[in-house]
Amino acid sequence: MMNTLAITGEALIGGVAVKGSGSAIYAYNPGLQQQMEPAFHAVDLQQIDQACRLADAAFDQFRALSDEQRAVFLETIAEQIMALGETLVERVMAESGLPRLRIEGERGRTVGQLKLFASLLREGSWHDVRIDPALPERTPPRPDLRMRMIPVGPVAVFAASNFPLAFSVAGGDTASALAAGCPVVLKAHSAHPGTSELVGRAIVKAVELCGLPAGVFALLTGSGNGIGQELVRHPAIKAVGFTGSRSGGTALMAVAAARPVPIPVYAEMSSINPVFLLPQALAARAEDIAQGFAASLVLGVGQMCTNPGLVIGIDGPDLARFTATAAQALAGGAACAMLSSGIAGSYARGIHQLEQHADVSTLALAGQEAGKGAPALFRTTAAAFLSQHALSEEVFGPASLVVACRDLAELHQVAESLEGQLTATLQMDAADLDTAQALLPLLERKAGRILANGYPTGVEVCSAMVHGGPFPSTSDGRSTSVGTGAINRFLRPVCYQNLAQALLPPVLRDNSEADTGAGTNAGRWHRRDGVLTRA
Amino acid sequence: MMNTLAITGEALIGGVAVKGSGSAIYAYNPGLQQQMEPAFHAVDLQQIDQACRLADAAFDQFRALSDEQRAVFLETIAEQIMALGETLVERVMAESGLPRLRIEGERGRTVGQLKLFASLLREGSWHDVRIDPALPERTPPRPDLRMRMIPVGPVAVFAASNFPLAFSVAGGDTASALAAGCPVVLKAHSAHPGTSELVGRAIVKAVELCGLPAGVFALLTGSGNGIGQELVRHPAIKAVGFTGSRSGGTALMAVAAARPVPIPVYAEMSSINPVFLLPQALAARAEDIAQGFAASLVLGVGQMCTNPGLVIGIDGPDLARFTATAAQALAGGAACAMLSSGIAGSYARGIHQLEQHADVSTLALAGQEAGKGAPALFRTTAAAFLSQHALSEEVFGPASLVVACRDLAELHQVAESLEGQLTATLQMDAADLDTAQALLPLLERKAGRILANGYPTGVEVCSAMVHGGPFPSTSDGRSTSVGTGAINRFLRPVCYQNLAQALLPPVLRDNSEADTGAGTNAGRWHRRDGVLTRA
Repeated sequence: MMNTLAITGEALIGGVAVKGSGSAIYAYNPGLQQQMEPAFHAVDLQQIDQACRLADAAFDQFRALSDEQRAVFLETIAEQIMALGETLVERVMAESGLPRLRIEGERGRTVGQLKLFASLLREGSWHDVRIDPALPERTPPRPDLRMRMIPVGPVAVFAASNFPLAFSVAGGDTASALAAGCPVVLKAHSAHPGTSELVGRAIVKAVELCGLPAGVFALLTGSGNGIGQELVRHPAIKAVGFTGSRSGGTALMAVAAARPVPIPVYAEMSSINPVFLLPQALAARAEDIAQGFAASLVLGVGQMCTNPGLVIGIDGPDLARFTATAAQALAGGAACAMLSSGIAGSYARGIHQLEQHADVSTLALAGQEAGKGAPALFRTTAAAFLSQHALSEEVFGPASLVVACRDLAELHQVAESLEGQLTATLQMDAADLDTAQALLPLLERKAGRILANGYPTGVEVCSAMVHGGPFPSTSDGRSTSVGTGAINRFLRPVCYQNLAQALLPPVLRDNSEADTGAGTNAGRWHRRDGVLTRA
Repeated sequence: MMNTLAITGEALIGGVAVKGSGSAIYAYNPGLQQQMEPAFHAVDLQQIDQACRLADAAFDQFRALSDEQRAVFLETIAEQIMALGETLVERVMAESGLPRLRIEGERGRTVGQLKLFASLLREGSWHDVRIDPALPERTPPRPDLRMRMIPVGPVAVFAASNFPLAFSVAGGDTASALAAGCPVVLKAHSAHPGTSELVGRAIVKAVELCGLPAGVFALLTGSGNGIGQELVRHPAIKAVGFTGSRSGGTALMAVAAARPVPIPVYAEMSSINPVFLLPQALAARAEDIAQGFAASLVLGVGQMCTNPGLVIGIDGPDLARFTATAAQALAGGAACAMLSSGIAGSYARGIHQLEQHADVSTLALAGQEAGKGAPALFRTTAAAFLSQHALSEEVFGPASLVVACRDLAELHQVAESLEGQLTATLQMDAADLDTAQALLPLLERKAGRILANGYPTGVEVCSAMVHGGPFPSTSDGRSTSVGTGAINRFLRPVCYQNLAQALLPPVLRDNSEADTGAGTNAGRWHRRDGVLTRA
């Protein structure tokens, strides 16, 4: 049985720990600014191929499990993650520089979303069962037609750096792919390799405990683009889940599109999450909004996909009160350790460019330190923003740009100019309703989630969540990577025409006394002649 | 008001008929083998741009319609198509060479699918409404989260040649895109330009009658790849529906992926629709199966996406009885006019290559005539089929290839070697159940629809239909282009967090006495805390 508490620097393929033959990387403790043992060696092409072949070989058995069996598997992963206890929490803290409370909360979110997908499986409507019974008397006769969703096949998942648990090895992409019945070949993020190995071992142990084929899950080690691109090229891989940079995501999109058999890529990439300060709200509570905004901006040292990197308001005394309060709150904040030296370096370059920009003024910049992210607030005019695309590029970290507009018409122009976003936020009062209503259709075109009087950080894991949005916030705005809707990314429909009951998958069979409970007679939702029913 | 009964050779942009400035094409009557008046001039870049801009401008108003309003629009299109009467039927017959009964049936299918989407809109569950109410007492508090699907934006639709009504101007792609709330810019197929203009005029008149903005629908004229590629490149276009050749579909996929903002392409392209003759069924009723197969093969002169172009059985006397009967039925058939001289030419080249192939024997070939499709049946061995990819390429028309396997293991190998398919058919008896069960997981991976004891031609328009399948049968195996599931291709989710009731779209509002019927209190299906309900 897999020893879950070891960190040996190995990949996990076929249910066993194996050493990669490539170059070594080490974890880095950003708080202590020191390298951590052991070495993690990159997997080679043969190991990538082996992981993908085993995933393919495991696919039919894994997808044939009942909903209950797959639900228990997800719950077993959650249990095994909790069983890692302090070993996990301390390693994540060391590798990420994030505080204990955040890590424990993120662990709760991670096991919570595994359990949410387990409950989704038990509820069963994810199958989208549709039954159009035969109409033998009709001219021409209608055959018996039954549809269900099946998993697409093995999925390559790329872990994110910024949530070492919730968007990493056992994060939302893995949970939703496994829930769908897709084996997962996971590319670990080099920013937290020890965390990745611990969680990977927990999943492998859950695979063992549930008696599943070892190919259901593999963890690949290594850094750089080569491993990921080879993984996406492998013919056994049928879909990709990714959270990371725009350059990384678009590179994988290109590889996937160039395959002999193209596959879908679900990449969550880049978003500046505009916050619109509508006039009446700004007049009534500029300071309150500024305090809430500043708190949202520095959450997790600004390393959130939904970090509010852009604020749009109408120039004047109210906006000046907002910027003064926000600047004061941010300038007094401390620079904190960022997730990796790479991220800290990119952030420092990003704020340096804004500082130097002729059309940008610096409203706040906390004391900078190497490797740390200093909260920063900048200001520009709508005219400058509209004419210079570089000002709308994401600076990943606790920095935001305030865009001062002459009037509502210019505010609309700024909104119109934005690329696709994960979120758009309205700070509004009742008297701003007409203004908000005029803006809403545009925001619906631009964003996956629209908030009023809140802040975009904090992404609830639930049925109604959309953590997605038009390109480039994601590669595919028809999807969400958080919440139960995430399972739909990894499903495709199959129709069965005139198949004998014995040949039909259980979920499509007619009611019968002998049914074991997996059929439609178990009170499961399905469509009969297009009508939703449980009868 | 648009005159619906005219054929002037014009494009339809902004609700008016406009002459293209490009080169002229003419319709061709394949039965009489003569050119038809008038000339259809290709649209220019400025006209393409105008159609796309108008579609974009119409989008917000069109998508804001109630389900009832959009349902009435679809029904009005259906009425206007029927009102074209004999003018339409005669033009389709002349341009396609297809007989009256087929055309009248296809017209019935076309208006039927418009009405089916109208009923889907009224039923309302397509919105996929999800409501997770606020939990203010929880730590941390949960905000109010509500989700619905919205249309993706203007859709470019490419009409198919082989169904001049049901997969053309007002076909399944157009019906599902309009149902979703997406304006449609339609590229007419040059094989039936007069039919396209008549149906286009019917849609424009329906737009007028329903008081919708003219940009909701445009018809573009012209042939060649240039117009289509410009259309797919246009920034206002947010998705593509296509039915046609593999080369045409993959070219559009490449254009869509190379855009600054990539968009999804739903291309239905290429399928040889394997028919597996399982041993007991073949022994019991080889001749019956052969008769049914031959009838399916020549339906519509074999110009069906689901034409059975491949038959796989185990070599021996039973397979010989099958091929003898099928060959006799096909050799006695007449060569019939194909849809266009281009299709007839490709078909003639395809069967010539098979005739000349060293590893292929010709079992039947009806008398060939220029411009016509002669039924043809060929035979090869599994060994030859497995080693030569060219033998698995589609020959569009009434030709099929029988692959003789040594045993079940080789039959599995042939199945494993296949590319993605729209359909896979099992001819089986009760005694073949184990054989079928062993084959089924493989067929599920390969095809969108699996049939027993029928033939793949005949695609029912209903809730459970899947007319789709893994690449290259389509560009995106997660979708169907026939049946109500087709609407999902043109939708994306948006989540609303803590929005005031007055700002929420009606379908997401809470119950209230004042509600006009569009809200969730109208007894519509939605998910509350993840649970499906109508309460």
